[in-house]
Amino acid sequence: MSFSNLDHIRAYCRDLPSGDAKAQAAALARQDTLTKPPGSLGRLEELAAWLARWQGREIPLLDRVRILVFAGNHGVAHRGVSAYPADVTAQMVENFHTGGAAINQLARLADAALDVVAIDLDHPTVDFTEAPAMSVPEFLDAANIGYHSVGAPCDLLIVGEMGIANTTVASALCAALFGGGAAQWVGRGTGVDETGLARKRDAITAALARHARLAQDPLLAAAALGGRELAAIAGAVLMARRHRIPVLLDGFVVTAAVAPLHRLAAGALDHCCSAHVSAEQAHRVLLRHLGLDPLLDLGMRLGEGSGAAVAVHLLRAAAACHAGMATFAQAGVSGAT
Amino acid sequence: MSFSNLDHIRAYCRDLPSGDAKAQAAALARQDTLTKPPGSLGRLEELAAWLARWQGREIPLLDRVRILVFAGNHGVAHRGVSAYPADVTAQMVENFHTGGAAINQLARLADAALDVVAIDLDHPTVDFTEAPAMSVPEFLDAANIGYHSVGAPCDLLIVGEMGIANTTVASALCAALFGGGAAQWVGRGTGVDETGLARKRDAITAALARHARLAQDPLLAAAALGGRELAAIAGAVLMARRHRIPVLLDGFVVTAAVAPLHRLAAGALDHCCSAHVSAEQAHRVLLRHLGLDPLLDLGMRLGEGSGAAVAVHLLRAAAACHAGMATFAQAGVSGAT
Repeated sequence: MSFSNLDHIRAYCRDLPSGDAKAQAAALARQDTLTKPPGSLGRLEELAAWLARWQGREIPLLDRVRILVFAGNHGVAHRGVSAYPADVTAQMVENFHTGGAAINQLARLADAALDVVAIDLDHPTVDFTEAPAMSVPEFLDAANIGYHSVGAPCDLLIVGEMGIANTTVASALCAALFGGGAAQWVGRGTGVDETGLARKRDAITAALARHARLAQDPLLAAAALGGRELAAIAGAVLMARRHRIPVLLDGFVVTAAVAPLHRLAAGALDHCCSAHVSAEQAHRVLLRHLGLDPLLDLGMRLGEGSGAAVAVHLLRAAAACHAGMATFAQAGVSGAT
Repeated sequence: MSFSNLDHIRAYCRDLPSGDAKAQAAALARQDTLTKPPGSLGRLEELAAWLARWQGREIPLLDRVRILVFAGNHGVAHRGVSAYPADVTAQMVENFHTGGAAINQLARLADAALDVVAIDLDHPTVDFTEAPAMSVPEFLDAANIGYHSVGAPCDLLIVGEMGIANTTVASALCAALFGGGAAQWVGRGTGVDETGLARKRDAITAALARHARLAQDPLLAAAALGGRELAAIAGAVLMARRHRIPVLLDGFVVTAAVAPLHRLAAGALDHCCSAHVSAEQAHRVLLRHLGLDPLLDLGMRLGEGSGAAVAVHLLRAAAACHAGMATFAQAGVSGAT
């Protein structure tokens, strides 16, 4: 199956599979038998139960963790909205292939398979201050690439991104989806100076004005104001939901990429957990809009899936305690008085 | 060497070895050459440099991570200040030995060696509402046990604790060291109800009144209001400093245990990083007093070193990126414009 039109995605989002509430309840009940005060592992207990829900088993596994990094280029990059030239997208994809990037080290440490999907880097999207970044067919193509990238079964999916200028794109998309204007959503991205920040704000403001009508619809907004890697991320997250694969979302750009799905259906991201809140200030605002509570707050702002590749260890810790701890009865430990 | 009197500890704290500022500076300089926007790994960059400082090498290692869990019993436990009977301390130590506790699962996941040091569990400290919990020689014995437990060389030390009633003890010690009274420092620990909480508050208030004079001195306070596992933790952290071993502090009790060292010398905890902030509300207040910024905030409140055993993965992530990433020059990636 591929998405052949936007209504197809809308219908898909109205009929998303729900998780296994029984497995989740069984996991929570199990937690209270383990040799610790109830609730004392805090968020780790919830994470074990959330994994149980989406994997459909009381004792979840994290043997097969997969990281998918999508890369795309952006027409708006030529407006000087990034500290780096647009060539860096392709150069970093090459760096991913030769193993020199942060995500390579983090994937190895997390024992996760890493796949990089570069989408049409030689053909950037259109500068969205002048016309929609993508036509609807272009948007669907990218979403379908993401959707079909989640082929092999896995226990957890991490989605990441690379694309010079894509925090500008993410900010514009968030402003379209949630209002508030460019100023609320813009940030320094890779580290632009004041002049660069002003250029970002101006580009976003111009794009919002030009595409005000399209911005009314979450998917038309994602086409006009988004990017190929963002569309692919949304597609991958939809495929993960079909197979009930839990997803760790990385930072601001990834979260912005899936925000249109939340607008289409309130529970569309229930199988997703926010790995971290980025130093990009708009990320915190966006997470609040989506009702997501990030696991980590380490001031990271690299992308590539790096924050999620760090947070996977927290899920592993949750799963290890859940699976391996003795119960009060097994260990002969007295319960609460 | 062993500490033969309190002045010995005071003198030791006036003459603590400092870290290797050159290695730290080299690590920070290296970070800016790696293929990422400067600063974009956030706290991970600082952690790599902090490890470099204390290990005295630009590229730190985390091959040998050691977890030391100290256990002790407390006279005040008989006042009903915990949700669990005092027998649980020994039962949990047995659980550590048979591998059924949370820390066993987390140590395995973190590839860390786990050692449990139970100190005189059959002889609880004195109920501190009636007399000092420990005499000075008893305090020194426990501190020396901790000090000498850090024998084998390692790249990172994690300290944890187990002791029914020890959040009551930690709260009393914090109130003595930083003021504010019982109400500011007391919390639900393992999960006491309102009545239990009132009993904790009353016990702490009584102990503070009884030992007001001793509470003027950080070490006399640690003897009168502390516990054996807390004293041992302080001793272990002092030995780690001698060998410039970086330390990950676990939760509220561990942080309270080392707080007297901070009172003796402002930089005494520079080789320590706070792994997480516990759900025990006083921990956040205490960390602020000590100028420590916790890595994780997951609502954990188990002790055993569990929060630190989770946070070790963040240090590994920091070290892996620091050691393994390509530089801009190596990868042929363009720098900032």
